[in-house]
Amino acid sequence: MKSIQSISIIGTGNLAFHLGTSLVDEGVQIDYVFGRNEEKATALANRLHARSANKISEIESDLVLICVSDDAISEIIAQFPEQQKIAYTSGSVELDNFKNHKNVGVFYPLQTFSINRTIQLNEVPFLIEATNSDFSKELIDLAWKLSSNVTYADSQERKRYHLAAVWVNNFTNHMVYQAKTIAERNALNWDFLLPLLKETTAKASSMNPKDAQTGPARRNDNATIRAHEAMLKGMQKEIYTLLSKSIKDTYND
Amino acid sequence: MKSIQSISIIGTGNLAFHLGTSLVDEGVQIDYVFGRNEEKATALANRLHARSANKISEIESDLVLICVSDDAISEIIAQFPEQQKIAYTSGSVELDNFKNHKNVGVFYPLQTFSINRTIQLNEVPFLIEATNSDFSKELIDLAWKLSSNVTYADSQERKRYHLAAVWVNNFTNHMVYQAKTIAERNALNWDFLLPLLKETTAKASSMNPKDAQTGPARRNDNATIRAHEAMLKGMQKEIYTLLSKSIKDTYND
Repeated sequence: MKSIQSISIIGTGNLAFHLGTSLVDEGVQIDYVFGRNEEKATALANRLHARSANKISEIESDLVLICVSDDAISEIIAQFPEQQKIAYTSGSVELDNFKNHKNVGVFYPLQTFSINRTIQLNEVPFLIEATNSDFSKELIDLAWKLSSNVTYADSQERKRYHLAAVWVNNFTNHMVYQAKTIAERNALNWDFLLPLLKETTAKASSMNPKDAQTGPARRNDNATIRAHEAMLKGMQKEIYTLLSKSIKDTYND
Repeated sequence: MKSIQSISIIGTGNLAFHLGTSLVDEGVQIDYVFGRNEEKATALANRLHARSANKISEIESDLVLICVSDDAISEIIAQFPEQQKIAYTSGSVELDNFKNHKNVGVFYPLQTFSINRTIQLNEVPFLIEATNSDFSKELIDLAWKLSSNVTYADSQERKRYHLAAVWVNNFTNHMVYQAKTIAERNALNWDFLLPLLKETTAKASSMNPKDAQTGPARRNDNATIRAHEAMLKGMQKEIYTLLSKSIKDTYND
Protein backbone atom coordinates (compact mmCIF):
# COMPACT_ATOMS: atom_id res chain seq x y z
CA MET A 1 0.00 0.00 0.00
CA LYS A 2 1.59 3.24 -1.09
CA SER A 3 0.90 6.37 0.94
CA ILE A 4 -0.56 9.57 -0.40
CA GLN A 5 2.28 11.92 -1.42
CA SER A 6 0.51 14.55 -3.46
CA ILE A 7 -2.95 16.07 -3.41
CA SER A 8 -5.09 18.29 -5.59
CA ILE A 9 -7.86 20.34 -4.03
CA ILE A 10 -11.24 21.12 -5.54
CA GLY A 11 -12.92 24.09 -3.93
CA THR A 12 -11.63 27.42 -2.68
CA GLY A 13 -13.68 28.06 0.46
CA ASN A 14 -12.82 28.05 4.15
CA LEU A 15 -12.31 24.31 4.37
CA ALA A 16 -10.11 24.16 1.23
CA PHE A 17 -8.01 26.95 2.71
CA HIS A 18 -7.56 25.39 6.15
CA LEU A 19 -6.95 21.83 4.98
CA GLY A 20 -4.67 23.00 2.17
CA THR A 21 -2.45 25.20 4.32
CA SER A 22 -2.27 22.57 7.09
CA LEU A 23 -1.28 19.87 4.61
CA VAL A 24 1.43 22.09 3.13
CA ASP A 25 2.68 22.78 6.66
CA GLU A 26 3.00 19.02 7.13
CA GLY A 27 5.09 18.71 3.98
CA VAL A 28 2.38 17.33 1.71
CA GLN A 29 2.65 18.51 -1.89
CA ILE A 30 -0.39 20.21 -3.36
CA ASP A 31 -0.39 19.85 -7.17
CA TYR A 32 -3.51 21.67 -8.33
CA VAL A 33 -6.31 23.81 -7.02
CA PHE A 34 -9.53 23.92 -9.01
CA GLY A 35 -12.54 26.13 -8.35
CA ARG A 36 -15.40 27.76 -10.23
CA ASN A 37 -14.06 31.15 -9.20
CA GLU A 38 -10.77 31.40 -11.14
CA GLU A 39 -9.44 34.31 -9.13
CA LYS A 40 -9.94 32.53 -5.81
CA ALA A 41 -8.46 29.32 -7.25
CA THR A 42 -5.33 31.18 -8.37
CA ALA A 43 -4.98 32.91 -5.00
CA LEU A 44 -5.28 29.65 -3.07
CA ALA A 45 -2.96 27.85 -5.51
CA ASN A 46 -0.31 30.52 -4.94
CA ARG A 47 -0.73 30.23 -1.19
CA LEU A 48 -0.23 26.45 -1.44
CA HIS A 49 2.68 26.57 -3.94
CA ALA A 50 0.42 24.76 -6.39
CA ARG A 51 -0.93 25.36 -9.88
CA SER A 52 -4.42 26.52 -10.64
CA ALA A 53 -6.16 23.99 -12.92
CA ASN A 54 -8.27 25.30 -15.78
CA LYS A 55 -10.31 22.16 -16.01
CA ILE A 56 -10.77 19.03 -13.97
CA SER A 57 -9.27 16.78 -16.64
CA GLU A 58 -5.86 18.45 -16.11
CA ILE A 59 -5.67 17.24 -12.54
CA GLU A 60 -3.34 14.40 -11.65
CA SER A 61 -2.41 13.59 -8.07
CA ASP A 62 -2.34 10.65 -5.68
CA LEU A 63 -5.48 12.08 -4.13
CA VAL A 64 -8.17 14.55 -5.13
CA LEU A 65 -9.67 16.26 -2.08
CA ILE A 66 -13.13 17.70 -2.72
CA CYS A 67 -14.01 20.68 -0.51
CA VAL A 68 -17.25 21.90 -2.10
CA SER A 69 -20.88 22.07 -1.04
CA ASP A 70 -22.74 18.78 -0.71
CA ASP A 71 -24.81 19.08 -3.85
CA ALA A 72 -21.78 19.52 -6.12
CA ILE A 73 -19.80 16.48 -4.93
CA SER A 74 -21.48 13.88 -7.11
CA GLU A 75 -21.02 15.78 -10.33
CA ILE A 76 -17.32 16.31 -9.63
CA ILE A 77 -16.62 12.70 -8.76
CA ALA A 78 -18.30 11.62 -12.03
CA GLN A 79 -15.66 13.50 -14.00
CA PHE A 80 -12.73 11.41 -12.70
CA PRO A 81 -11.62 7.99 -13.96
CA GLU A 82 -12.36 5.12 -11.61
CA GLN A 83 -8.73 4.54 -10.59
CA GLN A 84 -8.39 8.12 -9.28
CA LYS A 85 -8.50 8.28 -5.49
CA ILE A 86 -10.99 10.91 -4.39
CA ALA A 87 -12.05 12.00 -0.92
CA TYR A 88 -14.81 14.44 -0.01
CA THR A 89 -15.19 16.41 3.19
CA SER A 90 -18.93 16.44 3.85
CA GLY A 91 -20.60 15.46 7.12
CA SER A 92 -23.81 14.28 5.51
CA VAL A 93 -23.26 12.86 2.00
CA GLU A 94 -23.43 9.05 2.19
CA LEU A 95 -20.65 7.00 0.67
CA ASP A 96 -23.22 4.59 -0.76
CA ASN A 97 -23.90 7.18 -3.45
CA PHE A 98 -20.50 6.27 -4.92
CA LYS A 99 -20.34 2.52 -4.40
CA ASN A 100 -19.75 2.02 -8.12
CA HIS A 101 -16.55 4.05 -7.91
CA LYS A 102 -13.59 2.00 -6.72
CA ASN A 103 -11.70 4.69 -4.82
CA VAL A 104 -13.94 7.19 -3.12
CA GLY A 105 -13.52 8.13 0.52
CA VAL A 106 -14.53 10.59 3.19
CA PHE A 107 -12.15 12.93 4.98
CA TYR A 108 -14.40 14.81 7.39
CA PRO A 109 -13.05 17.21 10.04
CA LEU A 110 -15.61 17.81 12.79
CA GLN A 111 -15.00 21.53 13.12
CA THR A 112 -16.25 24.94 11.97
CA PHE A 113 -13.96 26.82 9.61
CA SER A 114 -13.86 30.53 8.91
CA ILE A 115 -11.28 32.14 6.73
CA ASN A 116 -9.80 34.50 9.32
CA ARG A 117 -9.47 31.99 12.14
CA THR A 118 -6.35 29.98 12.84
CA ILE A 119 -7.48 26.46 13.67
CA GLN A 120 -5.34 23.99 15.60
CA LEU A 121 -6.27 20.94 13.55
CA ASN A 122 -4.32 18.62 15.83
CA GLU A 123 -7.21 18.17 18.25
CA VAL A 124 -9.95 18.17 15.61
CA PRO A 125 -11.61 14.75 15.12
CA PHE A 126 -11.27 13.43 11.56
CA LEU A 127 -13.93 10.91 10.55
CA ILE A 128 -12.73 8.62 7.76
CA GLU A 129 -14.53 6.18 5.46
CA ALA A 130 -13.77 4.73 2.03
CA THR A 131 -15.12 2.30 -0.57
CA ASN A 132 -12.18 -0.02 0.07
CA SER A 133 -10.13 -0.69 3.16
CA ASP A 134 -6.72 0.05 1.62
CA PHE A 135 -7.90 3.51 0.70
CA SER A 136 -9.44 4.12 4.12
CA LYS A 137 -6.09 3.20 5.70
CA GLU A 138 -4.34 5.70 3.42
CA LEU A 139 -6.83 8.40 4.39
CA ILE A 140 -6.39 7.59 8.08
CA ASP A 141 -2.60 7.92 7.66
CA LEU A 142 -3.07 11.24 5.92
CA ALA A 143 -5.41 12.51 8.66
CA TRP A 144 -2.85 11.50 11.31
CA LYS A 145 -0.48 14.04 9.79
CA LEU A 146 -2.96 16.75 10.74
CA SER A 147 -4.62 15.49 13.92
CA SER A 148 -4.11 13.13 16.83
CA ASN A 149 -7.83 12.34 16.80
CA VAL A 150 -8.59 10.18 13.76
CA THR A 151 -11.32 7.57 13.63
CA TYR A 152 -13.15 5.37 11.16
CA ALA A 153 -16.87 6.21 11.00
CA ASP A 154 -19.46 4.90 8.57
CA SER A 155 -21.86 7.27 6.81
CA GLN A 156 -24.66 6.84 9.35
CA GLU A 157 -22.37 7.55 12.30
CA ARG A 158 -20.83 10.53 10.53
CA LYS A 159 -24.30 11.95 9.83
CA ARG A 160 -25.14 11.69 13.53
CA TYR A 161 -21.95 13.53 14.48
CA HIS A 162 -22.84 16.16 11.92
CA LEU A 163 -26.33 16.51 13.38
CA ALA A 164 -24.92 16.91 16.91
CA ALA A 165 -22.42 19.43 15.53
CA VAL A 166 -25.24 21.56 14.13
CA TRP A 167 -26.55 21.98 17.69
CA VAL A 168 -23.12 22.46 19.27
CA ASN A 169 -22.00 25.06 16.75
CA ASN A 170 -24.61 26.36 14.30
CA PHE A 171 -27.46 26.75 16.78
CA THR A 172 -25.36 28.04 19.69
CA ASN A 173 -23.80 30.58 17.34
CA HIS A 174 -27.26 31.66 16.20
CA MET A 175 -28.28 32.17 19.86
CA VAL A 176 -25.25 34.41 20.32
CA TYR A 177 -26.16 36.23 17.10
CA GLN A 178 -29.68 36.84 18.44
CA ALA A 179 -28.23 38.07 21.74
CA LYS A 180 -26.03 40.48 19.81
CA THR A 181 -28.96 41.90 17.84
CA ILE A 182 -30.79 42.43 21.16
CA ALA A 183 -27.69 44.15 22.56
CA GLU A 184 -27.35 46.38 19.50
CA ARG A 185 -31.05 47.27 19.39
CA ASN A 186 -30.85 48.37 23.03
CA ALA A 187 -27.42 50.02 22.94
CA LEU A 188 -25.99 47.54 25.45
CA ASN A 189 -22.25 47.03 25.86
CA TRP A 190 -21.63 43.69 24.14
CA ASP A 191 -18.36 43.22 26.03
CA PHE A 192 -20.43 42.82 29.21
CA LEU A 193 -21.82 39.55 27.81
CA LEU A 194 -18.46 37.99 26.97
CA PRO A 195 -17.47 36.74 30.46
CA LEU A 196 -20.85 34.97 30.53
CA LEU A 197 -20.24 33.41 27.12
CA LYS A 198 -16.82 32.20 28.23
CA GLU A 199 -18.16 30.68 31.44
CA THR A 200 -21.04 29.09 29.49
CA THR A 201 -18.62 27.08 27.37
CA ALA A 202 -16.34 26.29 30.27
CA LYS A 203 -19.33 24.85 32.12
CA ALA A 204 -20.68 22.98 29.10
CA SER A 205 -17.26 21.38 28.55
CA SER A 206 -16.65 20.37 32.14
CA MET A 207 -20.12 19.64 33.52
CA ASN A 208 -23.14 17.84 32.20
CA PRO A 209 -25.07 20.60 30.36
CA LYS A 210 -28.22 19.33 32.05
CA ASP A 211 -26.72 20.31 35.42
CA ALA A 212 -25.27 23.55 34.05
CA GLN A 213 -28.67 24.96 33.06
CA THR A 214 -29.74 28.13 34.87
CA GLY A 215 -32.15 30.96 34.08
CA PRO A 216 -35.87 31.79 34.23
CA ALA A 217 -37.12 28.73 32.32
CA ARG A 218 -35.02 26.42 34.49
CA ARG A 219 -36.50 28.06 37.59
CA ASN A 220 -40.01 28.02 36.14
CA ASP A 221 -39.99 31.80 36.62
CA ASN A 222 -42.99 32.59 34.42
CA ALA A 223 -43.15 36.26 35.38
CA THR A 224 -39.68 36.86 33.95
CA ILE A 225 -40.44 34.74 30.88
CA ARG A 226 -43.54 36.84 30.19
CA ALA A 227 -41.59 40.08 30.72
CA HIS A 228 -38.92 38.89 28.27
CA GLU A 229 -41.50 37.86 25.69
CA ALA A 230 -43.02 41.33 25.93
CA MET A 231 -39.61 42.76 24.94
CA LEU A 232 -39.40 40.59 21.80
CA LYS A 233 -41.36 40.15 18.61
CA GLY A 234 -41.55 38.03 15.48
CA MET A 235 -39.11 35.18 15.08
CA GLN A 236 -37.11 36.11 18.20
CA LYS A 237 -40.22 35.88 20.34
CA GLU A 238 -41.17 32.57 18.73
CA ILE A 239 -37.73 31.11 19.46
CA TYR A 240 -37.74 32.46 23.01
CA THR A 241 -41.11 30.83 23.71
CA LEU A 242 -40.20 27.48 22.16
CA LEU A 243 -36.82 27.19 23.89
CA SER A 244 -38.25 28.26 27.25
CA LYS A 245 -40.91 25.57 26.87
CA SER A 246 -38.26 23.02 25.93
CA ILE A 247 -36.14 23.90 28.98
CA LYS A 248 -39.19 23.74 31.25
CA ASP A 249 -40.16 20.35 29.78
CA THR A 250 -36.62 19.07 30.35
CA TYR A 251 -36.72 19.76 34.07
CA ASN A 252 -40.37 19.44 35.00
CA ASP A 253 -41.51 16.31 33.24
CA MET B 1 -21.06 58.43 53.58
CA LYS B 2 -19.99 55.37 55.51
CA SER B 3 -18.98 52.28 53.58
CA ILE B 4 -20.50 48.85 53.98
CA GLN B 5 -18.46 46.88 56.52
CA SER B 6 -20.72 43.95 57.31
CA ILE B 7 -23.29 41.99 55.37
CA SER B 8 -25.97 39.41 56.03
CA ILE B 9 -27.05 37.08 53.26
CA ILE B 10 -30.54 35.80 52.62
CA GLY B 11 -30.60 32.69 50.45
CA THR B 12 -28.39 29.61 50.32
CA GLY B 13 -28.18 28.84 46.59
CA ASN B 14 -25.39 29.14 44.03
CA LEU B 15 -25.35 32.92 44.00
CA ALA B 16 -25.37 33.23 47.81
CA PHE B 17 -22.46 30.81 47.93
CA HIS B 18 -20.35 32.56 45.28
CA LEU B 19 -21.00 36.12 46.44
CA GLY B 20 -20.58 35.14 50.09
CA THR B 21 -17.26 33.36 49.66
CA SER B 22 -15.89 36.11 47.40
CA LEU B 23 -16.87 38.81 49.87
CA VAL B 24 -15.21 36.91 52.73
CA ASP B 25 -12.09 36.54 50.56
CA GLU B 26 -12.07 40.33 50.22
CA GLY B 27 -12.21 40.79 53.99
CA VAL B 28 -15.89 41.68 54.25
CA GLN B 29 -17.55 40.41 57.40
CA ILE B 30 -20.63 38.25 56.96
CA ASP B 31 -22.85 38.43 60.05
CA TYR B 32 -25.79 36.17 59.33
CA VAL B 33 -27.02 33.72 56.74
CA PHE B 34 -30.75 33.08 56.55
CA GLY B 35 -32.52 30.53 54.38
CA ARG B 36 -35.69 28.45 54.40
CA ASN B 37 -33.55 25.32 54.45
CA GLU B 38 -31.96 25.43 57.90
CA GLU B 39 -29.33 22.82 57.14
CA LYS B 40 -28.09 24.66 54.06
CA ALA B 41 -28.14 27.97 55.94
CA THR B 42 -25.99 26.51 58.71
CA ALA B 43 -23.56 24.99 56.23
CA LEU B 44 -23.15 28.26 54.33
CA ALA B 45 -22.90 30.25 57.56
CA ASN B 46 -20.07 27.99 58.73
CA ARG B 47 -18.31 28.38 55.39
CA LEU B 48 -18.56 32.18 55.72
CA HIS B 49 -17.61 32.33 59.44
CA ALA B 50 -21.09 33.73 60.08
CA ARG B 51 -24.08 32.81 62.20
CA SER B 52 -27.19 31.15 60.89
CA ALA B 53 -30.23 33.31 61.68
CA ASN B 54 -33.39 31.59 62.90
CA LYS B 55 -35.61 34.40 61.79
CA ILE B 56 -35.25 37.54 59.71
CA SER B 57 -35.84 39.87 62.67
CA GLU B 58 -32.55 38.71 64.24
CA ILE B 59 -30.54 40.08 61.37
CA GLU B 60 -28.51 43.24 61.86
CA SER B 61 -25.82 44.32 59.38
CA ASP B 62 -24.80 47.34 57.34
CA LEU B 63 -26.31 45.56 54.32
CA VAL B 64 -28.71 42.70 53.74
CA LEU B 65 -27.97 40.94 50.44
CA ILE B 66 -30.95 39.03 49.08
CA CYS B 67 -30.00 36.05 46.88
CA VAL B 68 -33.36 34.35 46.40
CA SER B 69 -35.70 33.74 43.47
CA ASP B 70 -37.47 36.76 42.02
CA ASP B 71 -40.90 36.06 43.44
CA ALA B 72 -39.65 35.92 47.04
CA ILE B 73 -37.79 39.25 47.06
CA SER B 74 -40.73 41.51 47.78
CA GLU B 75 -41.94 39.54 50.78
CA ILE B 76 -38.45 39.55 52.33
CA ILE B 77 -37.90 43.27 51.87
CA ALA B 78 -41.25 43.97 53.56
CA GLN B 79 -39.95 42.35 56.75
CA PHE B 80 -37.13 44.87 57.25
CA PRO B 81 -37.39 48.35 58.77
CA GLU B 82 -37.04 51.19 56.32
CA GLN B 83 -33.62 52.30 57.53
CA GLN B 84 -32.09 48.86 56.78
CA LYS B 85 -30.02 48.86 53.59
CA ILE B 86 -31.07 45.97 51.39
CA ALA B 87 -29.81 44.90 47.96
CA TYR B 88 -31.21 42.15 45.77
CA THR B 89 -29.43 40.30 42.98
CA SER B 90 -32.09 39.79 40.32
CA GLY B 91 -31.74 40.67 36.65
CA SER B 92 -35.41 41.34 36.11
CA VAL B 93 -37.14 42.68 39.23
CA GLU B 94 -37.69 46.43 38.84
CA LEU B 95 -36.57 48.77 41.58
CA ASP B 96 -39.81 50.75 41.21
CA ASN B 97 -41.54 47.97 43.15
CA PHE B 98 -39.73 49.26 46.24
CA LYS B 99 -39.79 53.01 45.75
CA ASN B 100 -41.47 53.44 49.12
CA HIS B 101 -38.50 51.86 50.85
CA LYS B 102 -35.69 54.33 51.47
CA ASN B 103 -32.71 52.01 51.08
CA VAL B 104 -33.25 49.32 48.51
CA GLY B 105 -30.72 48.60 45.78
CA VAL B 106 -29.68 46.14 43.12
CA PHE B 107 -26.42 44.22 43.10
CA TYR B 108 -26.63 42.15 39.93
CA PRO B 109 -23.70 40.09 38.63
CA LEU B 110 -24.13 39.28 34.92
CA GLN B 111 -22.95 35.69 35.16
CA THR B 112 -24.16 32.11 35.55
CA PHE B 113 -23.37 30.46 38.86
CA SER B 114 -23.19 26.76 39.65
CA ILE B 115 -22.13 25.40 42.97
CA ASN B 116 -19.13 23.39 41.78
CA ARG B 117 -17.59 26.05 39.54
CA THR B 118 -14.93 28.48 40.65
CA ILE B 119 -15.86 31.85 39.18
CA GLN B 120 -13.36 34.65 38.71
CA LEU B 121 -15.68 37.45 39.72
CA ASN B 122 -13.12 40.12 38.87
CA GLU B 123 -14.16 40.30 35.21
CA VAL B 124 -17.90 39.80 35.83
CA PRO B 125 -19.97 42.94 35.15
CA PHE B 126 -21.90 44.13 38.22
CA LEU B 127 -24.98 46.24 37.42
CA ILE B 128 -25.89 48.54 40.31
CA GLU B 129 -28.98 50.60 41.07
CA ALA B 130 -30.52 52.00 44.27
CA THR B 131 -33.42 54.11 45.54
CA ASN B 132 -30.98 56.83 46.59
CA SER B 133 -27.64 57.90 45.18
CA ASP B 134 -25.64 57.55 48.42
CA PHE B 135 -26.67 53.92 48.65
CA SER B 136 -25.91 53.28 44.98
CA LYS B 137 -22.40 54.69 45.55
CA GLU B 138 -21.94 52.37 48.53
CA LEU B 139 -23.05 49.40 46.43
CA ILE B 140 -20.71 50.42 43.62
CA ASP B 141 -17.83 50.59 46.12
CA LEU B 142 -18.75 47.16 47.42
CA ALA B 143 -18.90 45.70 43.89
CA TRP B 144 -15.47 47.16 43.12
CA LYS B 145 -14.06 44.90 45.83
CA LEU B 146 -15.17 41.92 43.73
CA SER B 147 -14.88 43.09 40.14
CA SER B 148 -13.13 45.62 37.94
CA ASN B 149 -16.28 45.90 35.82
CA VAL B 150 -18.93 47.80 37.79
CA THR B 151 -21.55 50.03 36.25
CA TYR B 152 -24.74 51.84 37.14
CA ALA B 153 -27.74 50.52 35.19
CA ASP B 154 -31.40 51.35 35.67
CA SER B 155 -34.03 48.61 35.86
CA GLN B 156 -34.92 48.75 32.16
CA GLU B 157 -31.29 48.50 31.06
CA ARG B 158 -30.64 45.67 33.51
CA LYS B 159 -33.67 43.78 32.18
CA ARG B 160 -32.28 44.07 28.65
CA TYR B 161 -28.91 42.72 29.76
CA HIS B 162 -30.73 39.90 31.48
CA LEU B 163 -32.69 39.14 28.31
CA ALA B 164 -29.49 39.09 26.22
CA ALA B 165 -27.89 36.88 28.89
CA VAL B 166 -30.69 34.32 28.52
CA TRP B 167 -29.67 33.88 24.87
CA VAL B 168 -25.93 33.93 25.53
CA ASN B 169 -26.11 31.41 28.35
CA ASN B 170 -29.44 29.66 28.94
CA PHE B 171 -30.29 29.01 25.31
CA THR B 172 -26.76 28.12 24.15
CA ASN B 173 -26.50 25.72 27.08
CA HIS B 174 -29.80 24.14 26.10
CA MET B 175 -28.49 23.66 22.55
CA VAL B 176 -25.46 21.86 23.98
CA TYR B 177 -27.78 19.80 26.18
CA GLN B 178 -29.80 18.78 23.11
CA ALA B 179 -26.58 17.89 21.27
CA LYS B 180 -25.57 15.73 24.19
CA THR B 181 -28.87 13.85 24.21
CA ILE B 182 -28.40 13.20 20.47
CA ALA B 183 -24.86 11.99 21.16
CA GLU B 184 -26.02 9.71 23.96
CA ARG B 185 -28.97 8.31 21.99
CA ASN B 186 -26.59 7.42 19.16
CA ALA B 187 -23.63 6.23 21.25
CA LEU B 188 -21.39 8.99 19.89
CA ASN B 189 -18.19 10.00 21.65
CA TRP B 190 -19.11 13.32 23.28
CA ASP B 191 -15.44 14.32 23.55
CA PHE B 192 -15.37 14.57 19.75
CA LEU B 193 -17.72 17.55 19.96
CA LEU B 194 -15.70 19.51 22.50
CA PRO B 195 -13.08 21.04 20.14
CA LEU B 196 -16.02 22.33 18.10
CA LEU B 197 -17.67 23.82 21.18
CA LYS B 198 -14.42 25.52 22.15
CA GLU B 199 -13.90 26.99 18.69
CA THR B 200 -17.55 28.09 18.59
CA THR B 201 -17.07 30.31 21.64
CA ALA B 202 -13.68 31.53 20.51
CA LYS B 203 -15.25 32.63 17.23
CA ALA B 204 -18.31 34.17 18.87
CA SER B 205 -16.06 36.19 21.20
CA SER B 206 -13.66 37.42 18.56
CA MET B 207 -15.78 37.74 15.41
CA ASN B 208 -19.23 39.06 14.70
CA PRO B 209 -21.47 35.98 15.25
CA LYS B 210 -23.24 36.88 12.02
CA ASP B 211 -19.98 36.26 10.15
CA ALA B 212 -19.14 33.19 12.21
CA GLN B 213 -22.27 31.29 11.16
CA THR B 214 -21.69 28.09 9.18
CA GLY B 215 -23.72 24.93 8.59
CA PRO B 216 -26.53 23.61 6.40
CA ALA B 217 -29.06 26.39 7.12
CA ARG B 218 -26.43 29.05 6.45
CA ARG B 219 -25.63 27.36 3.11
CA ASN B 220 -29.32 26.85 2.32
CA ASP B 221 -28.53 23.14 2.08
CA ASN B 222 -32.10 21.86 2.24
CA ALA B 223 -31.21 18.23 1.51
CA THR B 224 -29.11 18.06 4.68
CA ILE B 225 -31.75 19.93 6.69
CA ARG B 226 -34.39 17.40 5.58
CA ALA B 227 -32.07 14.48 6.38
CA HIS B 228 -31.45 15.91 9.86
CA GLU B 229 -35.14 16.49 10.48
CA ALA B 230 -35.78 12.85 9.56
CA MET B 231 -33.39 11.85 12.37
CA LEU B 232 -35.28 13.90 14.98
CA LYS B 233 -38.75 13.93 16.48
CA GLY B 234 -40.96 15.88 18.85
CA MET B 235 -39.59 19.03 20.46
CA GLN B 236 -36.07 18.50 19.06
CA LYS B 237 -37.41 18.40 15.53
CA GLU B 238 -39.55 21.48 16.17
CA ILE B 239 -36.53 23.41 17.47
CA TYR B 240 -34.33 22.23 14.58
CA THR B 241 -36.89 23.41 12.03
CA LEU B 242 -37.50 26.79 13.68
CA LEU B 243 -33.81 27.60 14.18
CA SER B 244 -32.92 26.50 10.64
CA LYS B 245 -35.64 28.79 9.33
CA SER B 246 -34.37 31.63 11.50
CA ILE B 247 -30.80 31.17 10.23
CA LYS B 248 -32.01 31.01 6.63
CA ASP B 249 -34.10 34.17 7.15
CA THR B 250 -31.07 35.94 8.64
CA TYR B 251 -28.95 35.40 5.54
CA ASN B 252 -31.43 35.27 2.70
CA ASP B 253 -33.79 38.14 3.41
